[in-house]
Amino acid sequence: MTTVDSELLIKARAAKLASQQMRSLPTVIKNTALESIADELEQNRMLLLAANELDLAKARESGLDDAFLMRLALTENSLKAITNGVRNVAALPDPVGEEFDSRTLPSGMHLTRRRVPLGVIGTIFEARPEVPVDISALCLKSGNSVVLRGGKEAINTNKALSGIIRRTLEKNHMPDGAVQMVESTDRSLVHQMVKLRDYIDLLIPRGGPELIHFVANEANMPAIIGGIGVCHTYIDDPCDVTMASNIVFNAKVQAPAKCNALDTVLVHAAVAPKFLSAIAKWQTSAGVELRLDRRALALFGPNQTGMVRPAVEEDWGQEFLGLVLAVKIVDSIEEAMDHIDRYGSGHSEAIITSDDSNARRFVDSIDASVVLVNASTRLNDGGQFGLGAEVAISTNKLHARGPMGLRELTTYKWVASGNGHIRE
Amino acid sequence: MTTVDSELLIKARAAKLASQQMRSLPTVIKNTALESIADELEQNRMLLLAANELDLAKARESGLDDAFLMRLALTENSLKAITNGVRNVAALPDPVGEEFDSRTLPSGMHLTRRRVPLGVIGTIFEARPEVPVDISALCLKSGNSVVLRGGKEAINTNKALSGIIRRTLEKNHMPDGAVQMVESTDRSLVHQMVKLRDYIDLLIPRGGPELIHFVANEANMPAIIGGIGVCHTYIDDPCDVTMASNIVFNAKVQAPAKCNALDTVLVHAAVAPKFLSAIAKWQTSAGVELRLDRRALALFGPNQTGMVRPAVEEDWGQEFLGLVLAVKIVDSIEEAMDHIDRYGSGHSEAIITSDDSNARRFVDSIDASVVLVNASTRLNDGGQFGLGAEVAISTNKLHARGPMGLRELTTYKWVASGNGHIRE
Repeated sequence: MTTVDSELLIKARAAKLASQQMRSLPTVIKNTALESIADELEQNRMLLLAANELDLAKARESGLDDAFLMRLALTENSLKAITNGVRNVAALPDPVGEEFDSRTLPSGMHLTRRRVPLGVIGTIFEARPEVPVDISALCLKSGNSVVLRGGKEAINTNKALSGIIRRTLEKNHMPDGAVQMVESTDRSLVHQMVKLRDYIDLLIPRGGPELIHFVANEANMPAIIGGIGVCHTYIDDPCDVTMASNIVFNAKVQAPAKCNALDTVLVHAAVAPKFLSAIAKWQTSAGVELRLDRRALALFGPNQTGMVRPAVEEDWGQEFLGLVLAVKIVDSIEEAMDHIDRYGSGHSEAIITSDDSNARRFVDSIDASVVLVNASTRLNDGGQFGLGAEVAISTNKLHARGPMGLRELTTYKWVASGNGHIRE
Repeated sequence: MTTVDSELLIKARAAKLASQQMRSLPTVIKNTALESIADELEQNRMLLLAANELDLAKARESGLDDAFLMRLALTENSLKAITNGVRNVAALPDPVGEEFDSRTLPSGMHLTRRRVPLGVIGTIFEARPEVPVDISALCLKSGNSVVLRGGKEAINTNKALSGIIRRTLEKNHMPDGAVQMVESTDRSLVHQMVKLRDYIDLLIPRGGPELIHFVANEANMPAIIGGIGVCHTYIDDPCDVTMASNIVFNAKVQAPAKCNALDTVLVHAAVAPKFLSAIAKWQTSAGVELRLDRRALALFGPNQTGMVRPAVEEDWGQEFLGLVLAVKIVDSIEEAMDHIDRYGSGHSEAIITSDDSNARRFVDSIDASVVLVNASTRLNDGGQFGLGAEVAISTNKLHARGPMGLRELTTYKWVASGNGHIRE
């Protein structure tokens, strides 16, 4: 790194300085500040909507598409959802200070691990206005500072949001340096930010695959890599085929653009005819395009809709992020597990079976953040898992794997209390 | 990375393949194999000592110093210690398969986190022959494969050790690919190994600061950074000055070359005269050189031994790794904590106090892997903390912090068991 933008460096330093105070803030102060942030965001909604309107107008001028505008837009309703989110975080238990693995050693020394904040969380995000507020609330509650860097398309919205948050922190006797929004929209800033290991303890990218891959390859600090899911569901013999069809429908259709949506079904040859008949019943009306391997294609029979195609090698291991489903017939659970080992991304993998020992073998053998039995891959989610809030779904193996809640924004320190204890 | 040495790539791939079988090995198989490795190392001790003699002869020829030869040497006694270590690991509880945070969600879906191996551990180590055996035993017990790369000075010893381990694994129906010793002594290999993110899940460097810094800056996979400790002890007012002097003696003198040895004492002005008199009693006979700040120097009085010098700025934040101790007088606990925040390396920090509220403030505020009250920094150690074995002392904040035992060589996966559960 040659030079670091001075705004970035000043804000990263300020966040680090604030993190020293954040470490030991009482829960009640943090909760009061969060409630107060929710109130202030609501009271300043006209200002926020006006700032967002500036961004929307510029985005329309630049010819950005409707999907982008929808993600960028702040409305009375979406602001309500955002402030509810902040109040929910305030209501969650504070993970900081929890002690675990406590014990008294034979020497009489007392030993415990105590949960403490990580320090400074960095986030690089794209246009969505809920992201900076969500992440700030989660970081503040878990005793961390945060350095936020949003896309240039949302710059007015982001400035307005962070301005309100910082003023509210100050009023509530919280270190106002704890939330830092980098306002420069220079693209090179992202390249600088991922090298700031001395200031940022953990980087959480929130955006598309391009951003995630960039952070994975370039960050010199630990980063949460997630959000990329090539998800499989294996339909075992024996199983309840109606349940299998319902789960596959849900996993594919309920939110096909999400990382935990289903991509490939592996179906045991013995149940394949029944299973293919079952999904044929909803496939066309749900608008799902099938990519069938040779054997499945032969079973499926003629189809004139253009919604059924032979699978090609590139279909295995692909995250479709849309209404496309690849299907392959296998002759054994081993073949299914080998396929998942080869093509899976370690995100969400499911088995549908009525054989307990097969369920156990699948769960024991599959290496993924979440392994599901008789359930939809869409359930891999912090809210669904009862974590109360979710920062990301990690496919890292180290630190946090799967849905990350408040606890995953902390680390621990060992506390040893003696009475003159020395090493013999 | 342009080209990867084919031996390295073949062995990394073999380790990854073996890790799929290692995941679900029963504890009894792993323990039997470990016992068997200990037996075989003992039975082949003449072969091992002969291989080590080759390395020693070459090292003597190359003019390597006595300290190096001592680290490199394998003796009947050190081999006994190594095999005892392997048997100890066999006797430890298996962390793999442990379930935690288990619960049934309101939907009726059962959810648990299950502890699973990380996959492939990579280790780059220097001349010590105990390291490859220790690390292999810990990795095998925790269900991981390991790729070992040792210094060229120990190549014959390492080949002999890994040959015995692999043959024993094969005899015990363990995947013999689980332990891979890279035999090429080309230095560029280390540069290639730290970029093998696709094969190595966690890298543990075991060696001097140069190696550690290299791995910290270059590795593209998670790595355990540790072993660098700038350790402080704050002597509070009030405190038991005799206890303070005993603890400081132990922390400085018992093993000064270790990372958890004491470097700087911060002493409250009110107890400084008594404390300095107490350490004056053993300082010269223990061969400890003092680096005193201006005020401590004035209190300490004239000293003709040459073992007392004025501290300079470079002494603060220095890891001495020898019998040198810096001492600074402070006027408050805040001043001591500010000094530690500025100069500490987040390894081991201690307070000696008889005031419970000061102990609490110190423990709450100090950000380090281990914070100790009325105890020696030398106690930051896996063995001392009852972990049974230690892979490293981590100063990372993510994943594992402080002494790392078997559990820290694992990750978890979420297991969700439903009965047709879908996302609404």
